[in-house]
Amino acid sequence: VIHIRNGVAIHGGVGTLPPDQMTAEMEAAYRETLAASLGAGRAALDEGGHALDAVQAAIEVMEDSPLFNAGRGSNLDERGWATMDASVMSGETLEAGAVAGVTDVRNPIALARLVLGASPHLMLIGAGAEAFARRQGVEVTPNEWFRTERRERQLAEAKARDSSRPAEVLGDTVARDKAGTVGAVALDAEGRLAAGTSTGGMANKTWGRVGDSPIIGAGSYAGARCAVSCTGWGEYFIRNAAAYDVHARMAYGGRRLSEAAHEVIFDTLHTQIPESGGLVAIDAEGHVELCFSTPGMYRGWVDEHGDIQLRIARDD
Amino acid sequence: VIHIRNGVAIHGGVGTLPPDQMTAEMEAAYRETLAASLGAGRAALDEGGHALDAVQAAIEVMEDSPLFNAGRGSNLDERGWATMDASVMSGETLEAGAVAGVTDVRNPIALARLVLGASPHLMLIGAGAEAFARRQGVEVTPNEWFRTERRERQLAEAKARDSSRPAEVLGDTVARDKAGTVGAVALDAEGRLAAGTSTGGMANKTWGRVGDSPIIGAGSYAGARCAVSCTGWGEYFIRNAAAYDVHARMAYGGRRLSEAAHEVIFDTLHTQIPESGGLVAIDAEGHVELCFSTPGMYRGWVDEHGDIQLRIARDD
Repeated sequence: VIHIRNGVAIHGGVGTLPPDQMTAEMEAAYRETLAASLGAGRAALDEGGHALDAVQAAIEVMEDSPLFNAGRGSNLDERGWATMDASVMSGETLEAGAVAGVTDVRNPIALARLVLGASPHLMLIGAGAEAFARRQGVEVTPNEWFRTERRERQLAEAKARDSSRPAEVLGDTVARDKAGTVGAVALDAEGRLAAGTSTGGMANKTWGRVGDSPIIGAGSYAGARCAVSCTGWGEYFIRNAAAYDVHARMAYGGRRLSEAAHEVIFDTLHTQIPESGGLVAIDAEGHVELCFSTPGMYRGWVDEHGDIQLRIARDD
Repeated sequence: VIHIRNGVAIHGGVGTLPPDQMTAEMEAAYRETLAASLGAGRAALDEGGHALDAVQAAIEVMEDSPLFNAGRGSNLDERGWATMDASVMSGETLEAGAVAGVTDVRNPIALARLVLGASPHLMLIGAGAEAFARRQGVEVTPNEWFRTERRERQLAEAKARDSSRPAEVLGDTVARDKAGTVGAVALDAEGRLAAGTSTGGMANKTWGRVGDSPIIGAGSYAGARCAVSCTGWGEYFIRNAAAYDVHARMAYGGRRLSEAAHEVIFDTLHTQIPESGGLVAIDAEGHVELCFSTPGMYRGWVDEHGDIQLRIARDD
């Protein structure tokens, strides 16, 4: 059991690179970015920031990296566009912000945070969300900036494959297309919890498809008991209200965080669809959980001393 | 306690007309449409239909009526556009479909049902959802068709008011602007549960704003224990995962449906924001719950014999 006084835990998605593609250089690059993400989250807390600040800072680092499927490096939809979703929530106030289907906002998590703080609403989508971003003076960038050669190649592969086989039998290839969603949870020195998630969604997704990442209760949830960020096959996480379900099993079922997280990932999701994904979570007492049914999940945490731990494969 | 063998329960939203506006003609019109909605749901079940068919049929009647804030007669956003959201879910399979921000699909609930049945995804938004609708051959209509004089007037009133007072102090005027979301839950002869919800959202909403109606777990949820459809101040229903929370309190807390529904509407939502809304729900044994913290909620249910019961005010 991981137990910290305060800090941040992150994931960079399930569907880690298979061993033959995970070169020493690639692994070093992933570890460097995960460490930078945790460092940014830790710095936000050390400056007296709110758990929400730590979550946002940690996620922005992964959004700006082309390695992860969020912000720059997002998966591309069937039209070849990066369309991005994000959400963030405060466990202290239950305030939340979410955006879906944005195409030109550099850091979708920052926009979700602005919806939380500067809008009477909780969720904005599409061109309306982008108009809000402009009114707020958020940094925008052409859609081309988000697209990388790696994701163009992945889209072409998905198109070739999806045209020949139905989605139901794609198995772990599909899991890989959903890879790389990023998320963070934090507990600050004042005992406040927060969670956030950001994604480009799945490769070759239908125009307009939204997964669990921007759905409060599915991809992200923070309440009095715990903060949770999920990654995986979004449709299954939505239909099981996965992030909120961890909280509900603690609040109504008397479960500890680790029990609740394992029940959601293994007893519920893994039995419905094998290797469907994972989550990171932290409870109000500082217990950290990093739980997944896949061969790996990019993940790590930083404690109150700034000590950073990183993991990728299941047995790391 | 209402107990039926099989049937349908519906709501036409909280924020019922104040007594001085509820003329005998208006009340007769509301009752006629509610009865037609329940009749359509009952007919779907009598033809051997799935609970999902009954939910869809009941909601389509209310969408087609200009009286309710869904489909024709939807509230208008800050631009004067009708932008509509809907969701539907099967308690038997946990399959679900949702659409948000659609502007030209005559029956958003029918499109949500098609996302459930004909898409590998669970949720589609905006122009992408509309492109999917065209590929599916769904009936489309210009946005003007959805707009009614009553809603144009309501938008003008909201604009005049919102420009002079902050949203936090608007109290029950805001509740009225959120009025009229429609929803249905059903239990069919095979014991299958389903839930669905459809809305035009709140008057003068920010372009792109999405409330709880299309969010599985917030506005709609159906699982093994019960099916739930919510109406009210959407942001609060999302942050409490209201529809799923009824299910969770039954599954993990051992609550009966009526206890779980009252805890969510009164202990959770009403204490966070007074008169925040209501819900209709049915459990696997046929208990029906119609629960709200507002002065009224358009509502009704039909049992296995086709007996229809309608209510509007709290004391009806």
